[in-house]
Amino acid sequence: MNKPKTHRPLLEDVAGNGLLHRRLFLTSSVAMAGAAGLQLMTARPAAAAIPPEIPEWMRVPGAGMSGYGERSAHEDYVQRSFASRPGTIGSGSSRTPHELLEGIITPSALHFERHHNGIPDIDPSRHRLMIHGLVARPLMFDLESLSRYPLVSQIQFLECSGNSGANNAPEPPQLSAGGIHGLLSCSDWTGVPLSVLLDEAGVQPEARWIVAEGADAAAMSRSVPMAKALDDALIAIYQNGERLRPGNGYPMRLFLPGYEGNMSVKWLRRIEVTAGPMMTKDETSKYTDLLPDGRAMQFTFSMGVKSVITSPSGGLEMQRPGLYQISGIAWSGAGRIRRVEVSADGGQSWAEAALTDPVLPKSQTRFRMPWRWNGGPAVLQSRAIDETGAAQPTRSALLGERGAAYGYHHNAIQSWLVSAEGTVSNVYA
Amino acid sequence: MNKPKTHRPLLEDVAGNGLLHRRLFLTSSVAMAGAAGLQLMTARPAAAAIPPEIPEWMRVPGAGMSGYGERSAHEDYVQRSFASRPGTIGSGSSRTPHELLEGIITPSALHFERHHNGIPDIDPSRHRLMIHGLVARPLMFDLESLSRYPLVSQIQFLECSGNSGANNAPEPPQLSAGGIHGLLSCSDWTGVPLSVLLDEAGVQPEARWIVAEGADAAAMSRSVPMAKALDDALIAIYQNGERLRPGNGYPMRLFLPGYEGNMSVKWLRRIEVTAGPMMTKDETSKYTDLLPDGRAMQFTFSMGVKSVITSPSGGLEMQRPGLYQISGIAWSGAGRIRRVEVSADGGQSWAEAALTDPVLPKSQTRFRMPWRWNGGPAVLQSRAIDETGAAQPTRSALLGERGAAYGYHHNAIQSWLVSAEGTVSNVYA
Repeated sequence: MNKPKTHRPLLEDVAGNGLLHRRLFLTSSVAMAGAAGLQLMTARPAAAAIPPEIPEWMRVPGAGMSGYGERSAHEDYVQRSFASRPGTIGSGSSRTPHELLEGIITPSALHFERHHNGIPDIDPSRHRLMIHGLVARPLMFDLESLSRYPLVSQIQFLECSGNSGANNAPEPPQLSAGGIHGLLSCSDWTGVPLSVLLDEAGVQPEARWIVAEGADAAAMSRSVPMAKALDDALIAIYQNGERLRPGNGYPMRLFLPGYEGNMSVKWLRRIEVTAGPMMTKDETSKYTDLLPDGRAMQFTFSMGVKSVITSPSGGLEMQRPGLYQISGIAWSGAGRIRRVEVSADGGQSWAEAALTDPVLPKSQTRFRMPWRWNGGPAVLQSRAIDETGAAQPTRSALLGERGAAYGYHHNAIQSWLVSAEGTVSNVYA
Repeated sequence: MNKPKTHRPLLEDVAGNGLLHRRLFLTSSVAMAGAAGLQLMTARPAAAAIPPEIPEWMRVPGAGMSGYGERSAHEDYVQRSFASRPGTIGSGSSRTPHELLEGIITPSALHFERHHNGIPDIDPSRHRLMIHGLVARPLMFDLESLSRYPLVSQIQFLECSGNSGANNAPEPPQLSAGGIHGLLSCSDWTGVPLSVLLDEAGVQPEARWIVAEGADAAAMSRSVPMAKALDDALIAIYQNGERLRPGNGYPMRLFLPGYEGNMSVKWLRRIEVTAGPMMTKDETSKYTDLLPDGRAMQFTFSMGVKSVITSPSGGLEMQRPGLYQISGIAWSGAGRIRRVEVSADGGQSWAEAALTDPVLPKSQTRFRMPWRWNGGPAVLQSRAIDETGAAQPTRSALLGERGAAYGYHHNAIQSWLVSAEGTVSNVYA
């Protein structure tokens, strides 16, 4: 005899303040939840005999074909927020509006950007990449010759080391999920393994580092350990199927999976193989971590394990009490996400969220969790754990350990306060 | 004692006419291959002391930040090819230029489109979706109420049933990979499981089908078996992170993974739950398969297992003999790709290609294979096998079985002829 099916356990709280079991949305029990008064149902009843009226756009032929499509004008509000730094033309950053996006791929037009002297307008037929220094055979590549090499593809995130630094401020900034955490994006990158090119150039035994230089007006330069260069580093030439966008290094960039974004040098023109790090301006005057005793840590490459709830999140509004799906993204520079836990009571209790396939190493992972909002105040949090066992710290633990001057690599748990009125705001909890 | 490493087996043919072991490009033996005279190396030697000259775009600050980015003007040549059908405004199709793309994600601006009466200009705030017919509770949704439901994400292909039909012609059409097979694309789709909405509406016991209707001027309509509607069907509202593009059904479309593309009805406005198929104009006057005896098969939903080499492919040119990477895509409406085999001698011998992670069900899978072109003529082919064990047929086997009038669901092996001059053309082999 088959066991009778019951959905009841899925409708019971698995953690405080209304968190329900992650399997709820994986079964047909959602409708049952609605029948049980959980008010997922937001559809209006319809009169069975009356289909929706024929709108005017069905009465005339629509637009024809095009070579390269555009989004609807009604979506123009979906924009990266951006700020320019005073004093240097083209210096600043733009942020991915995660609160308006879904899935794991970031559209290339909305990928975050961080430039130190603007986006160069490069003629790809005249761009060159040189590999030189401690090598047997210095080499020069153009885009055509580089494209002839074997390619690999990797769906992976890129994150600026300054991402989420807004939450270092003493008072929580009232920004959106993208406004705080939008220096993070994820693409399907395709390029040539750097190891292949270094092998061809013939790396000399004393070589331990490379220095990568960009063809922008800032000649952005970073030192990279040889171990990373020979591991999973790419010279990326495609992003989400098509060639890189100018804001992401067209026609070629270094791509270092899981490492802080500025090291994935855009508009790559030169790789010098060296015995030690170069101590460039971009790794001494910035991108170091100031400690409480006044010293600075250098070369903190890997981005920590992290997550953020994107819906609901700062600036969005809840409409009425009932059943909601919490949705967010998790990522780690160390590998795959193993688990994401969610709290609706400010971290007093936690329950495991559902991870959406595919869960890839050093990639964005989408997590989702059912939540019954009872209409009272709630503090929503997510906590990611990666395959190495590393877990996201609380903000107070992170700042307590590092001190307030440590601006980069902020990977603390984000807390969103849902008020009784349904507004959502940033809160330190 | 450790076994001494040797790369020699990787440099020996694994199948006729120069196919090398798929692991060649997964190891550092590429450089060794170059040293062995395989001429992968396309870089020029560089004078060690002379970095590339400073181009003019490094001498001035570049462009600043933007809300929504664009591709480089140098990439404007990457376009969908498109054709309009005479007689009906907005009817026709545009094709993804696969020979110019890499990875598995298709940029939304280059996703294929097939319209029967153009792209409607829909105001999302006024669009409605009705579910009615054999249900307990007819329901009406707008985009806002639908977006409140639990979402799922799936990286999956969409293919028009007419894709590759050009190869039914008696003489091989001289088109690119995209020109022949470009009614295929792959996106990260996010939407509401249709099963959840049907559960909420309360499907009556006698219901066996649904009929989906679009809000275009053609009111494109298709019947779908209830089993598929309750399995993995979505009402998709996001594509590659952002909202659907107008050409792909903005603000909502049906998405039926693995089924012929026209059934994933765009601009979805109505789902009627029925006892049988509706026999709409779109499933009687077209999208049926004409058999040799004059009868037509209806409702051949699932897209067969298939693959195509995109590089090298029709219209591209080989530059000189040496080591190449063959790259292509494989997909199946029945599930995951298990294996792709490649031949360089017109199907006399085959060797297994490397599959690039992730290999997802009903998704594009990228395969790659090292090949030493000796400068003589070669016929390149790929043959995909999916997890059900189904394998791509040859063109002669497919046409022999179906007859020449059977235009849809053409999944035969594609053959590319590489001439001694390095030109690549479509050939029936």
